[in-house]
Amino acid sequence: MSVLSVLDYLSVFIFALTGALVASRAQLDLVGFVFIASLTAVGGGTVRDVLLDRDMVFWVANPWYLATASVAAVLVFFTAHLLESRRRAIDWLDAGALAVAVPAGVGVAVTLGHGPVVVLIMGMVTGAFGGLMRDVVCNEVPLVLRQGELYLSAAFAGALVAILTRAVLGPTPWALIACAAVTFLLRAGSMAFGWRLPVYKSRPPRS
Amino acid sequence: MSVLSVLDYLSVFIFALTGALVASRAQLDLVGFVFIASLTAVGGGTVRDVLLDRDMVFWVANPWYLATASVAAVLVFFTAHLLESRRRAIDWLDAGALAVAVPAGVGVAVTLGHGPVVVLIMGMVTGAFGGLMRDVVCNEVPLVLRQGELYLSAAFAGALVAILTRAVLGPTPWALIACAAVTFLLRAGSMAFGWRLPVYKSRPPRS
Amino acid sequence: MSVLSVLDYLSVFIFALTGALVASRAQLDLVGFVFIASLTAVGGGTVRDVLLDRDMVFWVANPWYLATASVAAVLVFFTAHLLESRRRAIDWLDAGALAVAVPAGVGVAVTLGHGPVVVLIMGMVTGAFGGLMRDVVCNEVPLVLRQGELYLSAAFAGALVAILTRAVLGPTPWALIACAAVTFLLRAGSMAFGWRLPVYKSRPPRS
Repeated sequence: MSVLSVLDYLSVFIFALTGALVASRAQLDLVGFVFIASLTAVGGGTVRDVLLDRDMVFWVANPWYLATASVAAVLVFFTAHLLESRRRAIDWLDAGALAVAVPAGVGVAVTLGHGPVVVLIMGMVTGAFGGLMRDVVCNEVPLVLRQGELYLSAAFAGALVAILTRAVLGPTPWALIACAAVTFLLRAGSMAFGWRLPVYKSRPPRS
Repeated sequence: MSVLSVLDYLSVFIFALTGALVASRAQLDLVGFVFIASLTAVGGGTVRDVLLDRDMVFWVANPWYLATASVAAVLVFFTAHLLESRRRAIDWLDAGALAVAVPAGVGVAVTLGHGPVVVLIMGMVTGAFGGLMRDVVCNEVPLVLRQGELYLSAAFAGALVAILTRAVLGPTPWALIACAAVTFLLRAGSMAFGWRLPVYKSRPPRS
Repeated sequence: MSVLSVLDYLSVFIFALTGALVASRAQLDLVGFVFIASLTAVGGGTVRDVLLDRDMVFWVANPWYLATASVAAVLVFFTAHLLESRRRAIDWLDAGALAVAVPAGVGVAVTLGHGPVVVLIMGMVTGAFGGLMRDVVCNEVPLVLRQGELYLSAAFAGALVAILTRAVLGPTPWALIACAAVTFLLRAGSMAFGWRLPVYKSRPPRS
């Protein structure tokens, strides 16, 4: 099993957990849990595959991804009530999923021979669009755009580190590992310690 | 004209009626009616065709589908005021459209030679995504996710019945007919008699 | 540089300005600005390219489009506070972007040899879907559907004029220029002078 497959399965599983937790907040039934979990889990990779016109969308080629997402959904359906704060669990699981989905997206784009700009975008798209679909469909404020937190910027930095690592060291699994680490650290640091970039603030016009 | 074409045209027409009714609640003009009606009518099949990478999206290959949706939109524009309850009309028409769209999606996936998991998903995607886009774009609570009703579960059961029928009887139009019947009965029963699956409820932690 | 490329770059740049202005209302950071600006700028053309199954989505084939959108995002990040009314700026820039995106969509569909219905739809899709994604993701009321204003109808009329011009004069750049002019005039007239089509109004049933 390749590094890329491991990343794909991991991001599917963890994103599915977050999707199912959001489904629990909307009080859906088990089929609804599986639906939202799958949408979240494969949404980003699906957009990536459609944009890159891959021969087959990854989960159409290999249905085990959906089985993985369904297992996560069932798990959450029967255990979510044990959690103290679902909101906090969603945030941290989402951070973990982001940190594996970004290198998964980067890896696919590199494998298909794309240049750095497309690689960068595909890392961000794979990381962000699953959660974005989850939140838009379930009418939650998109986590991706939560004001003042590092999310897209964490994904951006992670993908950039992967590209730079490859540029310096050549093809190496360390590029994807560094990408995951940087993405997670920035996202986690933003949640735990309030790290942030300056946000736009409307200022009064200078006199 | 094949069974699949009939299902496709029917689901396009009925989904377009629901889209136009939602447009009437948003007080759009005639072009807005046609737009939302078309989005609803071909949305699910479009996502299916893009995911399965068909040679051509069905309504690009054959523009009569869009003509059908436009006729439905015009019809609703001039007659919606005769309805006593648009909400109720939307719910029941949507149930009818779902019941023809699910077998249409199943049929396409089977024709392209996909395995049972992908067939199941394509039935649900074709049935659910048109209505989902309609509701997300028009900012309505998605009917697909309405709490405690059978919707995705009805689509799931219908698609499953089609797969089992084919597994037992071999290729037969009865698979699609059974799929439509099961989907409609479950959805209608849920609306009329309150049939439902247990939904997730947060319970107090056991002591 | 072809007329089509000029239209594409122009629509990307202007739509990106509107996306960044919406991002400023949501108080995002610079990466968020670039993300929303890019989504708005390439959203419509991406849907068009995926629906028409072009060899490559236009911005994957040529990353300068994303660079253009990023420049627009940075520009807005540092200057938006100088505007008196961001809402008004968004409306007028969006009208300009619509007026170049519709002919861009029409031009691509004509080049690929599609018939009039598909050409018409692709004009509207290219014009409308970028702004639609921007507003759905940022939870704004979709400008595309703003009640009682010409938007989709302006795009429709513009695309229709392009098709008729081509039918009469044969291949000519004037088709795209007329398309842009008609789209902009109708949209601008609707905003400035309240031009509109009759909208649906529920009337009391006749006695």
